[in-house]
Amino acid sequence: MTAIVNSQIQLVSRPTAEPTPDNFKLVEVALPALQDGQVLVRNHYLSLDPYMRGRMNDGKSYAQPQPLNEVMLGGTVGEVIASNNASFKVGDKVVGRGGWQTHQLVDASQRGVLQKVDTTHIPLSAYLGPVGMPGVTGWYGLSKIINPKAGETVVVSAASGAVGSVVGQLAKVRGARAVGLAGGADKCRYVIDELGFDDCIDYKEHSSVKSLSAALKAACPNGIDGYFENVGGMILDAVMLRANAFSRIAMCGMISGYNGEPIPMSAPQLILMNRMKIEGFIVSEHMDVWPEALTELGGLVATGKLKYRESVAQGLAAAPEAFLGLLKGKNFGKQLVKLV
Amino acid sequence: MTAIVNSQIQLVSRPTAEPTPDNFKLVEVALPALQDGQVLVRNHYLSLDPYMRGRMNDGKSYAQPQPLNEVMLGGTVGEVIASNNASFKVGDKVVGRGGWQTHQLVDASQRGVLQKVDTTHIPLSAYLGPVGMPGVTGWYGLSKIINPKAGETVVVSAASGAVGSVVGQLAKVRGARAVGLAGGADKCRYVIDELGFDDCIDYKEHSSVKSLSAALKAACPNGIDGYFENVGGMILDAVMLRANAFSRIAMCGMISGYNGEPIPMSAPQLILMNRMKIEGFIVSEHMDVWPEALTELGGLVATGKLKYRESVAQGLAAAPEAFLGLLKGKNFGKQLVKLV
Repeated sequence: MTAIVNSQIQLVSRPTAEPTPDNFKLVEVALPALQDGQVLVRNHYLSLDPYMRGRMNDGKSYAQPQPLNEVMLGGTVGEVIASNNASFKVGDKVVGRGGWQTHQLVDASQRGVLQKVDTTHIPLSAYLGPVGMPGVTGWYGLSKIINPKAGETVVVSAASGAVGSVVGQLAKVRGARAVGLAGGADKCRYVIDELGFDDCIDYKEHSSVKSLSAALKAACPNGIDGYFENVGGMILDAVMLRANAFSRIAMCGMISGYNGEPIPMSAPQLILMNRMKIEGFIVSEHMDVWPEALTELGGLVATGKLKYRESVAQGLAAAPEAFLGLLKGKNFGKQLVKLV
Repeated sequence: MTAIVNSQIQLVSRPTAEPTPDNFKLVEVALPALQDGQVLVRNHYLSLDPYMRGRMNDGKSYAQPQPLNEVMLGGTVGEVIASNNASFKVGDKVVGRGGWQTHQLVDASQRGVLQKVDTTHIPLSAYLGPVGMPGVTGWYGLSKIINPKAGETVVVSAASGAVGSVVGQLAKVRGARAVGLAGGADKCRYVIDELGFDDCIDYKEHSSVKSLSAALKAACPNGIDGYFENVGGMILDAVMLRANAFSRIAMCGMISGYNGEPIPMSAPQLILMNRMKIEGFIVSEHMDVWPEALTELGGLVATGKLKYRESVAQGLAAAPEAFLGLLKGKNFGKQLVKLV
């Protein structure tokens, strides 16, 4: 086998506030020969996700920081192009954590490192979206924390995104009213017309908690029973003002504070007054629910009942700009980078 | 039976900020004759509790506002002095919600309105404290929300009070480390020496989150796994900075915001980073656990294993001042008013 050059994007410096393209560097590394048990994967798509921003910082967080001068970590789907492992053969489609690089050389005998996937009814890229980590994230918060009863109202921020779109559609499957928050008229139209939410609020039209809270009151005439939080800040404050007794907040992301801005919760006494439950979670710590979640999500995607949208950047070199755009909400649906 | 004059304290105006004695008025009302099913109780002790402050406001809260120009609502213990109800006889000791008045005339056939209590091993007043609503409040938050494992660390604010003292002692019974927060050296000494907490921090010695957080770090070398919140504001912020992964906060009271001051939570992103669970609760909405809780609490009090302290004001007319003092932390232990 001729030597293959692996292109990868490394983190070379940490952002002090907003990250910039200079924090990243494209490098080429030679791939060593395949050892026993190893599999060589050609990555077809990289997943770009908001959680990666948190890992770029060095401070205390729920995950180890992304190491400097190493390939950016992240989920990938691809195809096996060489194998010294009996469980994988050339041509197998796989999902793994290949990172921001064209190739992944991996010891596939470690459990969970590489999963074969069936692309008969589900496109390969969907395993990075609704049938992957973002989908299970939405499933967990909706099913295990919010757990809506039929007729209740569920609100989700970043509603057109990879996670939010799943939350609202699952809420509808459970018989609840689904109300989204998204940035811009296009996204809101998509959330209602394509994803089937009952309503969607363009948060960019509201510059104060009062204004946003009034819009939520109109969209949620019976109040809010569950909220899936991807954003934080003013949106959380406005939602809490409309929260019903015994409402639940699944706290999944607080992207508004990723660059270090203070994002206080204005009125935590509402947690008491409304006997609310607020729970933060990270889906990788709940691997026990993944099979159940993926079974439901895969079935819904295969039968066309769970819709999703992708923003696809072309080529590895485009990954940093696509990631910075994601942090600013420039993507529309799941942000991917196509490598093949 | 000669006519009995019932003295009562009514709420005659609502506070705009801090309540004052002018919000209350002592009035005398004649008691009507006893009807079928009714019981006349001579109240021995009134219970004064922080939640009453919330009910003095007219705004949205978890409970109906205290009506104006009516007797202040509240828990009482006393003795039956006349009965037209087969289930109660003169001399029975009872706990009920008799309000701020010397006598309570009540239809005792309604379930739960009046409970006979046994004072053989448990003093009558304890049914307003560790074997009553405050005790069950502490029991619920500790057992059902914080649910500490042996070796974990539980922190409680207002630790010398009726609720906080139960929380810490129950945490010790469960094998956890108990750390209190209280105002002043006397209360802290009591919390450690009498109640048996492992440590207690005098929050009055700390004027900044940073300083209080450093004190918490010293008192909780393994971090904080559970926090029972009675206060809010700066104390909550400081605790959250020391919260461990998967820690739980039982939100029971936020007395620092009762007069309308803003009490923002500075860093709600810690809920996500530490995968915390925060839950507000009101013990009267969990009547199903009261029998289990009272069985444990009664057993611990009767055998001297659960210690408590009372601040007793003398006579009905002293109730308003005692209540205003309670809101400022002037009480030491459960605040009662003795009427007999």
